[in-house]
Amino acid sequence: MSFDQIRLDKQDGIALLTLYRPERMNAFTADMMAEIIAALDECDADDAVRAVIFTGHGDKAYCAGADLSAGAATFDYDTRSDKQRQLPEGTSASPVAEDGTIDWSHPLVRDGGGRVSMRIFAAKKPVLGAINGAAVGIGATMTLPMDARLASETARYGFVFARRGIVPEAASSWFLPRLVGIANAVDLCYSGRLISAAEAQEKGLVQSVHAPGALIDAAIAKAREMTADSAPVSVALTRHMLWRMMGAPHPMSAHRWDSRVIFSRGRSPDAAEGVTSFLEKRPPNFTASVANDYPWFDEFEDSPPYS
Amino acid sequence: MSFDQIRLDKQDGIALLTLYRPERMNAFTADMMAEIIAALDECDADDAVRAVIFTGHGDKAYCAGADLSAGAATFDYDTRSDKQRQLPEGTSASPVAEDGTIDWSHPLVRDGGGRVSMRIFAAKKPVLGAINGAAVGIGATMTLPMDARLASETARYGFVFARRGIVPEAASSWFLPRLVGIANAVDLCYSGRLISAAEAQEKGLVQSVHAPGALIDAAIAKAREMTADSAPVSVALTRHMLWRMMGAPHPMSAHRWDSRVIFSRGRSPDAAEGVTSFLEKRPPNFTASVANDYPWFDEFEDSPPYS
Amino acid sequence: MSFDQIRLDKQDGIALLTLYRPERMNAFTADMMAEIIAALDECDADDAVRAVIFTGHGDKAYCAGADLSAGAATFDYDTRSDKQRQLPEGTSASPVAEDGTIDWSHPLVRDGGGRVSMRIFAAKKPVLGAINGAAVGIGATMTLPMDARLASETARYGFVFARRGIVPEAASSWFLPRLVGIANAVDLCYSGRLISAAEAQEKGLVQSVHAPGALIDAAIAKAREMTADSAPVSVALTRHMLWRMMGAPHPMSAHRWDSRVIFSRGRSPDAAEGVTSFLEKRPPNFTASVANDYPWFDEFEDSPPYS
Repeated sequence: MSFDQIRLDKQDGIALLTLYRPERMNAFTADMMAEIIAALDECDADDAVRAVIFTGHGDKAYCAGADLSAGAATFDYDTRSDKQRQLPEGTSASPVAEDGTIDWSHPLVRDGGGRVSMRIFAAKKPVLGAINGAAVGIGATMTLPMDARLASETARYGFVFARRGIVPEAASSWFLPRLVGIANAVDLCYSGRLISAAEAQEKGLVQSVHAPGALIDAAIAKAREMTADSAPVSVALTRHMLWRMMGAPHPMSAHRWDSRVIFSRGRSPDAAEGVTSFLEKRPPNFTASVANDYPWFDEFEDSPPYS
Repeated sequence: MSFDQIRLDKQDGIALLTLYRPERMNAFTADMMAEIIAALDECDADDAVRAVIFTGHGDKAYCAGADLSAGAATFDYDTRSDKQRQLPEGTSASPVAEDGTIDWSHPLVRDGGGRVSMRIFAAKKPVLGAINGAAVGIGATMTLPMDARLASETARYGFVFARRGIVPEAASSWFLPRLVGIANAVDLCYSGRLISAAEAQEKGLVQSVHAPGALIDAAIAKAREMTADSAPVSVALTRHMLWRMMGAPHPMSAHRWDSRVIFSRGRSPDAAEGVTSFLEKRPPNFTASVANDYPWFDEFEDSPPYS
Repeated sequence: MSFDQIRLDKQDGIALLTLYRPERMNAFTADMMAEIIAALDECDADDAVRAVIFTGHGDKAYCAGADLSAGAATFDYDTRSDKQRQLPEGTSASPVAEDGTIDWSHPLVRDGGGRVSMRIFAAKKPVLGAINGAAVGIGATMTLPMDARLASETARYGFVFARRGIVPEAASSWFLPRLVGIANAVDLCYSGRLISAAEAQEKGLVQSVHAPGALIDAAIAKAREMTADSAPVSVALTRHMLWRMMGAPHPMSAHRWDSRVIFSRGRSPDAAEGVTSFLEKRPPNFTASVANDYPWFDEFEDSPPYS
């Protein structure tokens, strides 16, 4: 697939996904959404990719938020003509009936930022953010389901939604309090103020801060540390277990899942290689494939459906 | 409504709710509970109020906990005569049957501190605590559903329940681990020891510490920062989304909710004004009213009922 | 009961549970699992025990993880002959059918580390870890349901599962993100790298770090602080309320529970003694027994079953 609003470069096991709209501070559009989702599909299917790093083109912005070129109508998804073209055939043109009632299941109701967040949530590889500049609105919230956020000293974070008359989206109400605590989350989202990379790190939103020229290398180093000695299928399963269990009501949910997963992976050649290589004090050579051997368990289906 | 055990002063968009029992270190009673709930009802209905700040009268205590003037019978809600007078007509006088079995749905079983916590949880404005002195027992736990706790240098926090032979109440078992982490939460609640404002800040229980004379001004400044540039309806919705999603099992819950809310608010005049004022580089003038225009969604009803 | 792979020493209200396999760096086995569970049963039934402290024998390891003496077959629970002997009479010898399908409810599927975690989760006394050396694999994850982890300066933590081709177990996917945040949790579990006691403290995994010779005394001091002035039944209930409510969807769950518990304990002699001793400024003398008087509520049964 070729991309227009992003770039995807794969090298030495790392996929670098660059938001790429040079004239618009990498502002988010429905097309960018579709390209990000397609790129992650491609990375999940490619065993040569061990981790994905998001960044933004240029030195000014990671992503300045929703493209505001539609002006006052920007967030009115019912009337924006550029949204209508995305409707599946046979769908009614509007979720709003003549009497004003709303069909909440209509595709135009669905938040595009949330579709990106849910796709990152489902990724089978570690996903890191190299936040090279302003991360505002969806530019901020899309980074929350990532496994790590590394920031340039020049980065800024802004959850500006209430200043625009809307609300935090992209499932950020679930992710943000879990990352920075509820007190920081409400503070940032009520005021909508911009914060520096340093403040973002202090609050736990960003894991490390780097000189602009050193950011990508730092992200690559962290991605390699996360994956170098680990079995790819183990990392994929670990990612899904840890993130999902953050919402589980009881540790018994985890005990039921990890009993199955441990039994299943414990019989795999990867487990034999993991123990043998450790006893022989040599690097492991794992062979199971995320693309082909990733197990899925009925148990996982207990969680709410997502796509 | 006139109040006896609290004071409610509204000025320049801020409601200051002062716990007011000068002779009793602002100790908590069933009457104080009813007055707090009524005051929050009033603030939610008044669009001139953008935020609520709780504090305590005097310089010694924020709230010294439950009023212990009933002595050994303080927490025996079945036998305390001052509790009986609050029973609705037609209710049996006691939840305890002759054979000792307990009717758990009887009104006397319901924890009064929890009624305050649930009311703060449901508030449509940011709620801040200006903790001016000792916050002990219910004086500590009632502050947990607030959006921020600012403390005087002379403040003390004590979750003393186990030292009194009872347990943490006011739904604090849900709130406290989410604010300070489970390791701090169990440490504070097992021992029941008092901690300083500095230790409370270090643990994340308190967001900032101030000289006693500067506390209220700091709380007002924080409340203004939270609300000055933000649409009131957006802040109300953001409050409910972030706090509720802390308990949601899966980010898909948030994705479903915020898709609806974004669609709904995106069509509102507030969203048009938010984008337009930003593009015109001028302060926004939001017009939607929390009292009249606050939307409610069927989806929210999925969560457990509360009142 | 006499123990072979652990030691249990009770003194002055504290039970010291020492993992004891001097030749094997206290590596974990199915026998050790059974002994830990039996020891906690004994401690819960003994009112003289106010808290339990886990530590490891020697100065090298707390617990080096699963015993790897079975080599490549270590985690293949279907073929390890030493596992088969633990099967209840009448159970099929293998969860794997001839056609390769797996009976997920078969006892060999159940993770032994998780059985230890769930038993610690259910404990009625505070459980502390005095981590005297390497805590690797199950040696790390078994400490997560404890109320506090104190570490020797020489301790190391390693969530090495992905390096062995398996995944984090012992319900750690539920506990770890709640203790250290999701960003730290995925970082530690993807890479499987070892971290120092200092880094573990910085991340919130460990509550305090001590010179090796001072570790046990520090743990005993903390256990005494947690229990000295508190009613034993109050501590047991507080433990179950706080840990369980970490997973509850809504504060109303807590409000319903603590209303019942407050009503029940408020009528108990412990509550009368708690208030009276406070008013008389003397130490309390609580008499309710965890072994005999611990109340259980239907409400608690709402949570998923565990054992």
